[in-house]
Parts: sequence; structure tokens; C-alpha cells
Amino acid sequence: MYDVQEIRRDFPILSREVNGKPLVYLDNGASAQKPQVVIDAVTRGYAEDYANVHRGLHYLSNLSTEKYEATRGIAQRFLGAKHEDEIVYTTGTTEGINLVAYGWAMPHMEAGDEIVLSVMEHHANIVPWHFLRERMGVVIKWVDVDADGALDPQAVIDAIGPKTKLVAVTHMSNVLGTVVDVKAICAGAKARGVPVLVDGSQAAVHMPVDVADIGCDFYAITGHKLYGPSASGAIYIAGERQAEMRPFMGGGDMIREVHKDEITWAEPPMKFEAGTPGIVQQIGLGVALEYMMGVGMENIAAHEAGLRDYARSRLDGLNWLNVQGTTPDKGAIFSFTLEGAAHAHDISTILDKKGVAVRAGHHCAGPLMDHLGVSATCRASFGMYNTEGEVDALVEALELAHELFA
Amino acid sequence: MYDVQEIRRDFPILSREVNGKPLVYLDNGASAQKPQVVIDAVTRGYAEDYANVHRGLHYLSNLSTEKYEATRGIAQRFLGAKHEDEIVYTTGTTEGINLVAYGWAMPHMEAGDEIVLSVMEHHANIVPWHFLRERMGVVIKWVDVDADGALDPQAVIDAIGPKTKLVAVTHMSNVLGTVVDVKAICAGAKARGVPVLVDGSQAAVHMPVDVADIGCDFYAITGHKLYGPSASGAIYIAGERQAEMRPFMGGGDMIREVHKDEITWAEPPMKFEAGTPGIVQQIGLGVALEYMMGVGMENIAAHEAGLRDYARSRLDGLNWLNVQGTTPDKGAIFSFTLEGAAHAHDISTILDKKGVAVRAGHHCAGPLMDHLGVSATCRASFGMYNTEGEVDALVEALELAHELFA
Repeated sequence: MYDVQEIRRDFPILSREVNGKPLVYLDNGASAQKPQVVIDAVTRGYAEDYANVHRGLHYLSNLSTEKYEATRGIAQRFLGAKHEDEIVYTTGTTEGINLVAYGWAMPHMEAGDEIVLSVMEHHANIVPWHFLRERMGVVIKWVDVDADGALDPQAVIDAIGPKTKLVAVTHMSNVLGTVVDVKAICAGAKARGVPVLVDGSQAAVHMPVDVADIGCDFYAITGHKLYGPSASGAIYIAGERQAEMRPFMGGGDMIREVHKDEITWAEPPMKFEAGTPGIVQQIGLGVALEYMMGVGMENIAAHEAGLRDYARSRLDGLNWLNVQGTTPDKGAIFSFTLEGAAHAHDISTILDKKGVAVRAGHHCAGPLMDHLGVSATCRASFGMYNTEGEVDALVEALELAHELFA
Repeated sequence: MYDVQEIRRDFPILSREVNGKPLVYLDNGASAQKPQVVIDAVTRGYAEDYANVHRGLHYLSNLSTEKYEATRGIAQRFLGAKHEDEIVYTTGTTEGINLVAYGWAMPHMEAGDEIVLSVMEHHANIVPWHFLRERMGVVIKWVDVDADGALDPQAVIDAIGPKTKLVAVTHMSNVLGTVVDVKAICAGAKARGVPVLVDGSQAAVHMPVDVADIGCDFYAITGHKLYGPSASGAIYIAGERQAEMRPFMGGGDMIREVHKDEITWAEPPMKFEAGTPGIVQQIGLGVALEYMMGVGMENIAAHEAGLRDYARSRLDGLNWLNVQGTTPDKGAIFSFTLEGAAHAHDISTILDKKGVAVRAGHHCAGPLMDHLGVSATCRASFGMYNTEGEVDALVEALELAHELFA
């Protein structure tokens, strides 16, 4: 039985007030709050067990290394990867996708080669490819979403041509909540010999992920959205793709030997992890993933599906509200605008006065904003600890905003 | 008056035992321990004030942004930069130097152009330049150190030729403790129109740094060595150089607008900071730098100079010990080997049994190891909280190791 109140007690920040009102935190799409077990792991990591990893032989260094490396196996289980070495540590999805852009795509592509993207990608899955467009003459092919915000997997597959070298697509839109059938896309792309990168920043927070079942080549996740520390993260990279990659950042730990005129690399995944890493953050990420798996990803998904349905029914009752993204199986992410002149930023400010934290802006999704014909929206995004009562608080605050701006 | 015992009480880990002995932590060159104020700032950052930065308008996001951005001004004061915007946040020196390699050097260099390095650089200040050598045909020119481990600034200046585009040099060797006269190097390089990157990973921990006085173009620091959180950091980049740089990683926050076929960048420093950053770590870094400045960098330097002199006199008494690096004004970093067959790793294991944490290996300085003709050394590296009693503990443990291996 999913006891959301019990879960809420695990997150100390949820008991605080904001502007004299209980915090209603609906900005999970931007970043999630942290359970006490994660905070404790970070505190202990610094106060009791801290040392640098890998290069030491003393007690604290060994202890720190053991805890740090254990997260790799946890992430492997969390993502359903076959081998622990297919988990590369990153500081988040942005670094993960840049690693693929610099380490795999740049040496594999030339002018005129194509990358297929959906129009609802986050900037983290757009800007690295724009670099290749600007610097190398690579062509970005965009696939639109329909009026509901659905992405037809066949449209993505059909966009693949003889010059296509990569498909890069989100698993769940951070704006619309749309869940993309990445498994179908991977099957179609694989049949055409084209690797697929999946941006799992949002999806991995809200549903079970199994990269072996999906059949993708790259799957990026970011720790701070997964109830873990900031600047923690990982990317699944299939062994075959790792073997094709050159290193991205250079420094300690990713080399075997360095001489004046010669250099050899460490084996993957170390080859892609330069310098002293985010030791304590990665330890905290492991604890966060264990926490989620302990609750159960299926259970989290079911709880959030209930929230989504309840929120949809309540928001549908507000006939002055335009919700962007209406696919039935979407995640519990609601972007909306108010009819009339009210700007998204002003609406979010009103909501904040009521303790309701939502985000306003372009949500790092410029091409989608262009597609929707808006410059900004408000976004309420739910997580494992949110409740139907918080949906009610959102609706109440929206009604106040509507009154003020009507 | 520098009260080292009072300082020690600020670092909770220093009261722990290791292998039944009080911890004698002499691995500061690899990473430093954290004072309680830093740990508390991190805990509070997650438990009370957490939200994503920059893109929100709600209370917690504004609070988090304010605390996060405040570190920029603190780092500016710590480094003596003229403008806050010349501080670019990183996850450490490795990312900082890679940012310069990818963002400044790659677009400014072509085959046959040269980079001047000293032979005692850390891999973080070698491998990114090897990338340019391997991928673009850039030439690395190496400047040797003398028998004491001193680097003649004139030798660096003399290595600058008409094809030299960059000098990249450490401010303090992580192996030998050698302090480099980077001010003289910068003056000579500037007269020849060549920018200078200074790797401040070690130096900034142990002595006052003033980038305006040094006259460098780039100065990289790493938070985890500065008594701050792991994966925190910054790099000073002079405004003129920023203006010449293209972005390194692509993602949210570093753009102004993103469309399907067009993209514009945010102004520096944001242009170089892609994606959700290490929010809580950077807040913790600010607290760590304030802590150091509160004690006083001159005071820390004086305390450590005393430790260096005491350690030198004690180690000089061990006639079976070879110390690498003997310049009089070096930092309190001692690399050594034992005469005979004892391997550095075995020695460090013996020391560890006595609670003395030192590092053994190549210390991420392959070319220096080649220069010294060794494959590995032990290294005892001191920090602001170390004591003369800990020097005695080191010597006592070394004597035991010598007995066992003699």
C-alpha cells in the first residue's frame, strides 16, 4: 500500500512553510527534493568517511572508493543495464549528452550527416547537436508532435535517411508530460543501423526503465531530479558504443599512462570519467536510487498516474485554462496558460504567495515553445510525495490568479 | 594567533580513529577534509532551502539562486579578480582546464601551433593538451625542472616561440611542493602576446592568490581541495579571453534563445555554465572560501611554512629516505621513496596501519615521474589543520616501515 504521508515524512523540506503557507512543491520537473536518507548519506560522506577515491591505499580512501563505486551497480539495476561498466558517471544529463556529442558523434559524423530530434526536446538534447550543426555542417532533422503533444514513433523512424547517424529523443517531455514509445523508435532505428540516445531526465523519475528492453544505445539520467544530490548523474552507454568513443574530458583517472609524447587511456567506464569526481554526490545518488526502488518504481508510477488523472479532472473544470499536452498516458506534468493577457511569470508569482511552487518560462524547450506558438507557460510537475490535496491547493491558487487577472 | 587545535575542532572527521589509531590525515594534496560549517551549509541546502536556480520565480528558487550566485562574489574576492563575471563555475580544475582547451584553445589553434607546459604538470593540465596534439597536430613544448624541483621562469619564457599560443603551468606542484613564479612567467608571456593558464589546484589552498597581481588569463581552482564539497569549483577567466571563447558544453542556462535553426548564447559567465549546476556544492564552496579567508590565507601560509620546516628537519634526519623536491620556499608537500626495494604502495600500507594517511602512486604526474626516474612515490601533504605532532607520527611510522623493509 502506497502511503504518501509516510513518504512525505521522509522529506524534511516538505514540512516547511513558504510565505506563511505550507509548501506545495510542484516544481519537480526542474528538480526534486531529497529524502533524509540521502541528506544523511551526504553528511556522513563528509563528516565521517571522506577521502579521494581510486588513487589511495589508506583506509578512508578505500572506504570512500567502495561506497562511491557501489552506486554503479545500483544504477545498473535501476536502469536494467546488463553490465556495471555500461554505467558512466556524470554530473547530470547535460554532461551525459555532451559526452556523447563530443565523444561519439563528433568523430563519427561529417558535413551533411543528419541527427533526428523531436521538437519537444529539452535544450540539453538540442544544444550539443547545434554545436555539430554550427561547427561541422551536420543537419538536424526535426520531427513534430501532434495537437495532443503525442510523438508518432513511426514519424521518427521515417525521418531516418541514409545520412542519419543518430536519433536523440526524450523518453518523457519535461513540458507536456508526453511519454514517447522509445522502444518502437529503437527497433526501427536499429533495423536501419542507427543508434538511439534517449534523454531519460524526466522518465526515469516517474516510471520503471529497462534499457535492455528499450534497446537504446545511450540513456541519460540526472541525479538531482531523482531525489538525489545536485551534480550527480549517470549515462548508460552500450558496450559497443563505448568501444567506438574517444574520451571527452582529459585529466586524472581516465588514463593508463601519460608521457611527454604518448598517452594511453583507461578502460571504459573510467576512460570517460576525468579528474576527481563528485564522490559524495554519487554516493548520495546511490542512496536515492535505492530509496526509489525500495518504494517501487511501479508503485511510484501508479501513484503519479492517480495524481495525473485527478489533476486533469480538476484542471479540465477551469474553462479559462489552456493545458498543453493531453495524451492519456502522459506523466503528471501540466503546462498551461491562462486566457487573456496574464503572463506566466505573474501567475507563478500569485501561486507562490499561496505557497504553491511552479515554474514559469520556456522550460528549456525553445523549439517546442515555437511549435506551440507561446513564449512561456506555467508548469506544475508532480513527484512521488505529492498529494491530491496539493492538486486542490494548485486549483485554488489558480482561481485566485484568474480572479486577479480576469 | 593561529590556534591549530581550535581549527581542528571545526573538522569533525579529524577526531575519528583509523585502524585503532587517531587519524593523521596527510593526503590533503588529493583532497581536503571539510569543516562543520561547510557540512552544515550542504545539509541546510538540501533539508531547508532546496530548489533549482535561475529559472524559477518561486520563493525557494529565488532563495537558492541568491545563495548559489553569492559564491561568485566570494570566489572573486578569494582570487582577487576584478569582476564577478570573470568567475566561471566548474566541477573542479579538470573541467575548468577542459573548458579552456575546448572553448578557447581548439578554435584558436592549428597544426604546428605550440603550447608550453612544465614537466611537473598534473594530468589535468596535460591530457586536455594531448587531445589537441592528437586531434589537431598541436605541439607540446616541455620545460624541465632542476634537481631541486625548481622551475626557472625564464626557461618557460624562453620556450615561447612565434608559434606558441598558450603557456599552461602549475602554481604549486602537487608532487614536489615547488612554488612557481607565475607572475614572472605571465609578464614574459604577456610581452610576447601569449596568454597564460595557471593551474591553481594546490596553490590556492596554501597561499594568498591575486590573479590581478599575477596577471594570468586563466586560473583554475577546485573546491574539494579547498575544504569544500566534492565537484565544486571555479575558474577565473579574464574578460578579454571570455570574449574570445566559444561555449564548451551545451544545454539549459547557457543560451539566450534556441530555435530549430538558430541559437544565441547567454552572456559570460552563464555562456560557459550549461545545465542544472552543482547548486548545493557551490553554496558549500562559498562557505569554505569564507572559512579560509576568515582564518586568513596569510596565516594559513605561515602555519604551513612552519610545518614544512619542521617536517623537512625531521625527514632530513632519516638518511634512508629520498625526498623529491627541495626548494626552500616549497609548499608542505613531501614526496619520497625509501632506499632499497620497498614499493611506495607497501610503505603507505604500513603507514595506514598506524593511522597515517598518505598517498602512493604517480600522483597524476606521469611526465614528472619519468623525469625523476621513478614509477611511484609516497606523498605526505599537509593542510591548515595539521600539526607538528602529526609530523612526528609520520616519522615514527616511516621508521617502522624502514625497519620492516630494511
